[in-house]
Amino acid sequence: MDLSLEEFVALDESAKAAYVGDCAILYAQQFDRPDLDAYCSLADICRALHKMPVGAEFMASLLPHRMALNFFVQPSSRTFMSFNAAQLMLGMKRMSVRDVAISSMSKGETLADSVRTFMSYVDCIVMRHPDEHAGDVAVWIAMHAMRTIHIGGEERPIPIISGGSGTKQHPTQSLLDIYTLEKSFEHVGGIDGKTIMLVGDLKRGRTVRSLSYLLKNYRDVRLLFAAPEIYQMEPDILEFCDRHHMPWEKLDSLDAGIARADAIYMTRIQDEWDGLAKGAHTKATDRFVFKAEHLDRMKDEAYLLHPLPKRDEVDPALDYTDDRRVVYWRQERNGMWMRVAILAQLFRVDQAIRDFAATQGIK
Amino acid sequence: MDLSLEEFVALDESAKAAYVGDCAILYAQQFDRPDLDAYCSLADICRALHKMPVGAEFMASLLPHRMALNFFVQPSSRTFMSFNAAQLMLGMKRMSVRDVAISSMSKGETLADSVRTFMSYVDCIVMRHPDEHAGDVAVWIAMHAMRTIHIGGEERPIPIISGGSGTKQHPTQSLLDIYTLEKSFEHVGGIDGKTIMLVGDLKRGRTVRSLSYLLKNYRDVRLLFAAPEIYQMEPDILEFCDRHHMPWEKLDSLDAGIARADAIYMTRIQDEWDGLAKGAHTKATDRFVFKAEHLDRMKDEAYLLHPLPKRDEVDPALDYTDDRRVVYWRQERNGMWMRVAILAQLFRVDQAIRDFAATQGIK
Amino acid sequence: MDLSLEEFVALDESAKAAYVGDCAILYAQQFDRPDLDAYCSLADICRALHKMPVGAEFMASLLPHRMALNFFVQPSSRTFMSFNAAQLMLGMKRMSVRDVAISSMSKGETLADSVRTFMSYVDCIVMRHPDEHAGDVAVWIAMHAMRTIHIGGEERPIPIISGGSGTKQHPTQSLLDIYTLEKSFEHVGGIDGKTIMLVGDLKRGRTVRSLSYLLKNYRDVRLLFAAPEIYQMEPDILEFCDRHHMPWEKLDSLDAGIARADAIYMTRIQDEWDGLAKGAHTKATDRFVFKAEHLDRMKDEAYLLHPLPKRDEVDPALDYTDDRRVVYWRQERNGMWMRVAILAQLFRVDQAIRDFAATQGIK
Repeated sequence: MDLSLEEFVALDESAKAAYVGDCAILYAQQFDRPDLDAYCSLADICRALHKMPVGAEFMASLLPHRMALNFFVQPSSRTFMSFNAAQLMLGMKRMSVRDVAISSMSKGETLADSVRTFMSYVDCIVMRHPDEHAGDVAVWIAMHAMRTIHIGGEERPIPIISGGSGTKQHPTQSLLDIYTLEKSFEHVGGIDGKTIMLVGDLKRGRTVRSLSYLLKNYRDVRLLFAAPEIYQMEPDILEFCDRHHMPWEKLDSLDAGIARADAIYMTRIQDEWDGLAKGAHTKATDRFVFKAEHLDRMKDEAYLLHPLPKRDEVDPALDYTDDRRVVYWRQERNGMWMRVAILAQLFRVDQAIRDFAATQGIK
Repeated sequence: MDLSLEEFVALDESAKAAYVGDCAILYAQQFDRPDLDAYCSLADICRALHKMPVGAEFMASLLPHRMALNFFVQPSSRTFMSFNAAQLMLGMKRMSVRDVAISSMSKGETLADSVRTFMSYVDCIVMRHPDEHAGDVAVWIAMHAMRTIHIGGEERPIPIISGGSGTKQHPTQSLLDIYTLEKSFEHVGGIDGKTIMLVGDLKRGRTVRSLSYLLKNYRDVRLLFAAPEIYQMEPDILEFCDRHHMPWEKLDSLDAGIARADAIYMTRIQDEWDGLAKGAHTKATDRFVFKAEHLDRMKDEAYLLHPLPKRDEVDPALDYTDDRRVVYWRQERNGMWMRVAILAQLFRVDQAIRDFAATQGIK
Repeated sequence: MDLSLEEFVALDESAKAAYVGDCAILYAQQFDRPDLDAYCSLADICRALHKMPVGAEFMASLLPHRMALNFFVQPSSRTFMSFNAAQLMLGMKRMSVRDVAISSMSKGETLADSVRTFMSYVDCIVMRHPDEHAGDVAVWIAMHAMRTIHIGGEERPIPIISGGSGTKQHPTQSLLDIYTLEKSFEHVGGIDGKTIMLVGDLKRGRTVRSLSYLLKNYRDVRLLFAAPEIYQMEPDILEFCDRHHMPWEKLDSLDAGIARADAIYMTRIQDEWDGLAKGAHTKATDRFVFKAEHLDRMKDEAYLLHPLPKRDEVDPALDYTDDRRVVYWRQERNGMWMRVAILAQLFRVDQAIRDFAATQGIK
């Protein structure tokens, strides 16, 4: 069944996920448990392999003729840089567009034409764009464009990867969050059975939305939503949890959940959507701030995550703690390895990496 | 005979073309028919060679120690990206300057000093700059600078390539247009003898100006200029056509020429020169819009081109047509291959590419 | 002895230099005479080696797995481009951040968090930032961050290099200035014993400040400070000269020193700190302008330097002179070779370069 661009954009995300298949990374709904396990094990392997000079060299030999475009026309440090680093690790060539003012969009070109133009010259587009349907447009065009690329023995559409879309989704962030959780819980049975507290701006936090979608792939996960009422989680996610039998509770403070949570996932107030004056920022509500003293009340095997950037919602004293439960800086670096895994999988060099790693005693 | 910078800038373009010789790509007047044929055949060979892994690898081995600067301080998507892609294909290293505000020009440095500085560090400059004499300044400095580079057994000035100059010239675009026309007319005798209709904003369309200059190299070409009177072709080009015995007609609608044209070259209203409010654009005049129904009135062996970006002057329904006469997306991708050929020729690796291709059965 | 970030920032620069050791290039006070001699000889070797294809290839094989971040959020052409070129020569991979508006700093992230984030993904940061303590923050974080890199058999902090810090220091510029002076005075005993006249805006000229610090490493150097009173050298530098027994004089015109000076180091009025209207610039005072006729009054073995960019403080007629005493364009290119040497030394491939060069007959 084929769809026009308009028909495709009008679908709900699950239907879009089904239509797109493995041509793109746009919606957390695309992934099931085996996918997640495969991404996590591949990220682990890439990290271990890259530590060996022979492994780093092997990885850099995999995609030297592929060119990635990093099309980020909204602010980004971590996602942009970790994708760049991941591309370099796989030997890819890179271009970037970071400002529509220097592109032909400033001459009135449509997003569709611009994206199609990009596809004339590059083999992969990673994108963050203010239009919440930008990723939909890009993948539809990729699936209907004259130019395809040869990947793993097939002619395939040019891969599109979301680097964060409006307030809705940030699928690669949620994959690295899952990876961080799985590694943190490595010796206590993984994510299954855990209680995850999400704290802060859940309404506009695309990372917590995408993470909620992914967590339904694990058994007996319980979600605690700790947020000021105006920033509470949207009804569609609550319904999604219900439909997938994930118990959830709304909490009106971080304290209300800290003793029970196996993971505490802090988020920043996303006030970039509020049209504040330049440089002005909304202060985090005190009841949802993680303070140094909260460490004493966390479980021994609980972990503190944050997608970053952070502001005042986490005590900066924690930045240099040696408490092994504070993992957000490690989580940040995990992002790079997960993005290596994502690119490797999209370009079908994942098996080659696993095979080479096996010869080096890595599994 | 040597000239000061001021004397050089004051020359007419034909005299500049003669002075510059093959040190730069700045004016369409630099090229004669054998040049154009050589560029087209080289572009064809590069395209075929790059499809073979061994060919792509060979090409990437040619210029690994050369650094290109892409100095584009006006908006560009296609020209910028296709030059980047072309440089990568030849193994070149790249830097870019896309905003004078982040360069020393913001501290009051002259363009001449800035360009000379760039030449301290790079081996080639591709440039798009609002000053219509920027390319003149750059090539004159290259021809008088202390630093030269060793190319093909000679010490030569650092090559300068225009990526579009004001409303005057866009020589690499016109080379790719010629390439697209030649390929389209491959089985019907090439460009010789054809009628080419140029439509839209001919007054400020630097691509149609440069293309007109190149077309005098073909036999029996007839030009139709279809434009609203305020956007009609400038007298200097009409005189150029007369001087080179290229018959031309002004038309007051696209309809007036469609049945006769072998190629229809659409252009956008270049209203970036009109100082409109941000985001405002001038609507194309209906009589100069290409509509889907025009396909029925085109000749069987006629082709629809557009340098892109487009707006409302072409019906977007044509974007996904399978009518083989609509070639503007193919034309866009041709640009990359033509730019590979241009760089290869400037750095004198053209013969090496032809020789290697011959060993692979490509000619 | 360990220090908190606040304690470290509060130190004077000499104490900071001692604390930082060879983990960073931030303060001219870090270097003694053997360091300077080593940098100059290494820069010379790199330049000679790179001229040979086998040498260029060897150099590009040294650091292919290292990624540099060029974090320049103030205007820069020379420093930015020459570092990029130097990184490419050593085979390094590169990313750049040139605008805080496209980074997470626009979401309220602290500089400390941003820098720590960069350190998650890259192996070296070259930075120019408006905050005069930005380099201090970066090096302190590098010395306290979880992530270290393996260099020359040790786990070391991620190297930080200043690309110019506020009005205070520009250490790599002063290293290239020393290199240029040493090469200019090659046949007349080097810098020892010379009289150096610094002209222009000495108050806000970070290059003349850093250069003054370095010159104390040479014997019997005499400094002439020729500047309008409002731009005269700051008392801290005068005291530094006194402390290190470097005689100095204030002069109220360039003419007053020209007959005595072995080197004349011109500088631009740094009016970017004055909050002028966009495009407005302060005219240089006539008594401090180098005119073509001054060449006649310079010593035969004296040299004219300028860190560039220049404006009206040097007669543009000198740009194309063949007077071998006018060395500022050569000085500019020296910057690239010095930056190759700096990177090579920081990543401990300096000895490998010297060894390889020796096999090629270069010393």
